[in-house]
Amino acid sequence: MAHLGHVEVLTDRFEESLDFFTRVYGLKLSTLSGECAYLRAWDDYEFHTLKLTRHETTGIGHVSYRVSSPAALERRVAAIKASGYKVIGWVEDEPGHGRAFQFDDPFGHRFELYWDTRRYLPEDQDRSALKNQASAVPNSGIAPRRLDHLNLLSEDVTAFRDFMVTCLGARVTEQIRLNNGRLGGCWFTVNNKTYDLACTEEHGGGHGRFHHVTYATDQREDILRAADIMLENGIHIETGPHKHAVQGTFFLYVWEPAGNRVELANSGARLILAPDWETVEWTEEERKKGQAWGLKTIETFHTHGTPPVPGKE
Amino acid sequence: MAHLGHVEVLTDRFEESLDFFTRVYGLKLSTLSGECAYLRAWDDYEFHTLKLTRHETTGIGHVSYRVSSPAALERRVAAIKASGYKVIGWVEDEPGHGRAFQFDDPFGHRFELYWDTRRYLPEDQDRSALKNQASAVPNSGIAPRRLDHLNLLSEDVTAFRDFMVTCLGARVTEQIRLNNGRLGGCWFTVNNKTYDLACTEEHGGGHGRFHHVTYATDQREDILRAADIMLENGIHIETGPHKHAVQGTFFLYVWEPAGNRVELANSGARLILAPDWETVEWTEEERKKGQAWGLKTIETFHTHGTPPVPGKE
Amino acid sequence: MAHLGHVEVLTDRFEESLDFFTRVYGLKLSTLSGECAYLRAWDDYEFHTLKLTRHETTGIGHVSYRVSSPAALERRVAAIKASGYKVIGWVEDEPGHGRAFQFDDPFGHRFELYWDTRRYLPEDQDRSALKNQASAVPNSGIAPRRLDHLNLLSEDVTAFRDFMVTCLGARVTEQIRLNNGRLGGCWFTVNNKTYDLACTEEHGGGHGRFHHVTYATDQREDILRAADIMLENGIHIETGPHKHAVQGTFFLYVWEPAGNRVELANSGARLILAPDWETVEWTEEERKKGQAWGLKTIETFHTHGTPPVPGKE
Amino acid sequence: MAHLGHVEVLTDRFEESLDFFTRVYGLKLSTLSGECAYLRAWDDYEFHTLKLTRHETTGIGHVSYRVSSPAALERRVAAIKASGYKVIGWVEDEPGHGRAFQFDDPFGHRFELYWDTRRYLPEDQDRSALKNQASAVPNSGIAPRRLDHLNLLSEDVTAFRDFMVTCLGARVTEQIRLNNGRLGGCWFTVNNKTYDLACTEEHGGGHGRFHHVTYATDQREDILRAADIMLENGIHIETGPHKHAVQGTFFLYVWEPAGNRVELANSGARLILAPDWETVEWTEEERKKGQAWGLKTIETFHTHGTPPVPGKE
Repeated sequence: MAHLGHVEVLTDRFEESLDFFTRVYGLKLSTLSGECAYLRAWDDYEFHTLKLTRHETTGIGHVSYRVSSPAALERRVAAIKASGYKVIGWVEDEPGHGRAFQFDDPFGHRFELYWDTRRYLPEDQDRSALKNQASAVPNSGIAPRRLDHLNLLSEDVTAFRDFMVTCLGARVTEQIRLNNGRLGGCWFTVNNKTYDLACTEEHGGGHGRFHHVTYATDQREDILRAADIMLENGIHIETGPHKHAVQGTFFLYVWEPAGNRVELANSGARLILAPDWETVEWTEEERKKGQAWGLKTIETFHTHGTPPVPGKE
Repeated sequence: MAHLGHVEVLTDRFEESLDFFTRVYGLKLSTLSGECAYLRAWDDYEFHTLKLTRHETTGIGHVSYRVSSPAALERRVAAIKASGYKVIGWVEDEPGHGRAFQFDDPFGHRFELYWDTRRYLPEDQDRSALKNQASAVPNSGIAPRRLDHLNLLSEDVTAFRDFMVTCLGARVTEQIRLNNGRLGGCWFTVNNKTYDLACTEEHGGGHGRFHHVTYATDQREDILRAADIMLENGIHIETGPHKHAVQGTFFLYVWEPAGNRVELANSGARLILAPDWETVEWTEEERKKGQAWGLKTIETFHTHGTPPVPGKE
Repeated sequence: MAHLGHVEVLTDRFEESLDFFTRVYGLKLSTLSGECAYLRAWDDYEFHTLKLTRHETTGIGHVSYRVSSPAALERRVAAIKASGYKVIGWVEDEPGHGRAFQFDDPFGHRFELYWDTRRYLPEDQDRSALKNQASAVPNSGIAPRRLDHLNLLSEDVTAFRDFMVTCLGARVTEQIRLNNGRLGGCWFTVNNKTYDLACTEEHGGGHGRFHHVTYATDQREDILRAADIMLENGIHIETGPHKHAVQGTFFLYVWEPAGNRVELANSGARLILAPDWETVEWTEEERKKGQAWGLKTIETFHTHGTPPVPGKE
Repeated sequence: MAHLGHVEVLTDRFEESLDFFTRVYGLKLSTLSGECAYLRAWDDYEFHTLKLTRHETTGIGHVSYRVSSPAALERRVAAIKASGYKVIGWVEDEPGHGRAFQFDDPFGHRFELYWDTRRYLPEDQDRSALKNQASAVPNSGIAPRRLDHLNLLSEDVTAFRDFMVTCLGARVTEQIRLNNGRLGGCWFTVNNKTYDLACTEEHGGGHGRFHHVTYATDQREDILRAADIMLENGIHIETGPHKHAVQGTFFLYVWEPAGNRVELANSGARLILAPDWETVEWTEEERKKGQAWGLKTIETFHTHGTPPVPGKE
């Protein structure tokens, strides 16, 4: 497995969401096709890392990982077919990559794996002055550097962990163990990033829900500056900027106009380099201390997901 | 004397200069009037702090200070009239302030003083979410916070210093003493800023020339980010980012499309609070160490001014 | 009036407080004399800006301002004597400055004014490599650059404002107007800083209490880094890092080991340059939005002061 | 191959070098053993990442990589034995890891590979408040987060590249192609970091020399702050802070007291996630533009290596 490739986010306010992701958040639009916008951060090397889809609800469409090689794709597909998880099969209809193999986790989130991809080839104005940058650094919007991770909700984090280990060969870098013995959250990586995907326990009464998607900024200062931009543009800031205790990431969470939670994050120079990294386990008591510098986690962070549960929020 | 009010910069490439100052540098356009653009940074409280004027040359138009009170204006005008420096007299034709008293330094740079001003009153979209900010923080361009200072060139810095003390009641916070006994540079303030105006010795063979104008950013990181924006937009970066030894300012110097030098600077929390501050004097030997972290000053920094001297650069 | 000179803070855990202010907070010890430690930040030009005094309680000792000239001192003393506020008179027993004129505000906080001061003259190791810096930049502790401001509590902010205007000639840059018509808080300056002193309404049931003292860092990043240092050293972080709506300052509040609140703050390039600045007034409704980026103000911030009120916290 | 494990640096001024690396640079001393100091950054998970050895010269001792698994070690050793490069064989005498297999590149630099390692287990005071951090964040010195990379010099970069690909299975992320057809420099990675090791052409007349070793900071601001600390401690700053065009890293280069070049670097959020990354090749003409923001590379950067070549510098 190479890395998280892209995330499809659903919106019932397509135009407003697209305006947010381009003008305020600072992603670049690769193409508009039918009911979908294909977006990428300026240093993402692929055609898109965010697919924004017009839909009757908000929430997650699918989660896509790129594998390390054609052979790795074959091995993964065989393992998934043998696993008993629900298989959708091969699809081949996206402008951003070749055929992809789709399957579902036990909570209804759709996943896919692909090898063949479409590199983003900048033209003229969008070519960076530095040839090792995938496209020009924008001078408007927040403009994070690259896709970082996403967070899903599930009623059984242990079952989700089994899915990630079996189907994606993911490693668990950190997790929360509740007093009742259940896992409260689990952070997964398939490379040297500290995590590509997190799963936390659903406390809002929904099913198959989405918690957030995150892009990475080069510096923490970019996130402080982003907070002012969010404020000036009337975007709901849910919490932050602050530093997470788990994973130590500096964060800012907002709700885009349709209600999907979107994060900006910075991990500094932190990487998981040890091939035999031992999962860090946090107790419920440790988590009660709040975030790294003592901020108590805001209630909506535990209950708000998309799509929203009617009558709950 | 309250503070440096605005600077008029001349350009023989008006459209390109205006595009630079608005789209790249991130100033806001208050109005276009005749051959002039009136610009301000997002937290400048007045109507304009930069007047950009279409002209057959580059260089400086005039330098304008706001006084502390109507009475202070009267006292200053009396002092200037008594001083023997060249007096132009009262003018009253600007959209950004009331009548101003104009006079020249011995090198042909025009100065003016005024009390009556026009506050910038933001409307709708341009109103900040925070009522203590003069207008909304932009989400495009570099967008420094406020006008900081300017730098003029003269053949006799000591004579210029006498002018600043006599006519503006300025204090000298730092200066360079050359081995030949002359002043190589002088930094002046009329308030708690470390300087509003600097004068350095002309080494390029010109007369009445302009060295640079500077806006202040809130953080040093804004200047690092600005360097990438300058690079991507094809703006000539002359030197920096680096830290000056004199005044300790973190800086970046570029040439706007017409060739006028423009700086971004950050002084951190440094202020001149002591009412009896003793001028810091640097020797020529000390200045040979280069900038604060050892960067040797680039040759053009000593010779390039605007308007350029024909055949010299 | 030139600037806030120093603040005397009382501690009933002298050794622990001194360890905090030197090893963790990064102030430099000018001298220990009797029951007092005289401390300064590395770029404070005077002998001390913090006097830490062993005492049976915590809280504030006195607040000291330096005036602009000997004549200004005489004028101020005359005004105070004529004002009817409680006068203590001249004292002359401090290592850090000459004679000072003392008087009290209506809530029992002691103030003093002085002109004659003792500049800090660094020796050898403590001399900075840059001669315009008052002493060497430390490479341990948080090491803010200079004293910034303090905050007092009073039962009647309007009465306190009258005191500040009458006795110190202070300007009010921002204030909070409560729905009941009272002032909830008031921010004062005597120079171009956005404030030297704030007074907020006492909600904890005490009298003559102290809310916090603040030093300024050069960058917001210094405050993020400070939060990690506080955390690793077991210091209670009360709130932050975050950005204040009022004054727009980026802040971090901690309680030093004896319980006095201490802040680190960064104002970016914000200054009050307008000589006719109009007080910004915030309504109670506006303040309910929380801090600039939406953080709800923590309850202790409204009630904790020193000395603590028995049985209240 | 998992990651660069540690670097051994030789010094003929052991005490001064050790003082630099601990007090100024901010590494932690794991142990002193015989003529060697074993050091690590605060978030390095192993016992040491820098071995500082008392020696009659400066320069590089050996370069050590950790492999991904015991099986990977066997495969690598077999490949190296079959390669024809000079084999030293197994050694087992270090406090920081188990047995290691040693071999030389064609220029006399010694390499080793190992699997069994010794994790750093912090005690008491050195335990971080956050359990996912390898040890407490220091509040003195520059204190970078982790080992990043090293740079070796060789007379034939193409031959060095063959060695890295054959013996370490490294990928080439960027390289410089000179007009004469030779490689001027090559940047290698074995994981998602943009590089672990660089090799540049020897222009100083030496053989088997060392160019620099680098630790990573979390933020660029840490590097600006570091420059002040270097300055105040009398450390020779060679160049920077600035941004490299190649790899886009924000850098600061100094010479530690014995003359070995040491870097601090920050890559922001940049990673090599593409499994089929195509080597970025820079031409000699492109490199003549200087560093990213136009800084001309200082002459000593091309010629200074350790040990120094007698009579050359």
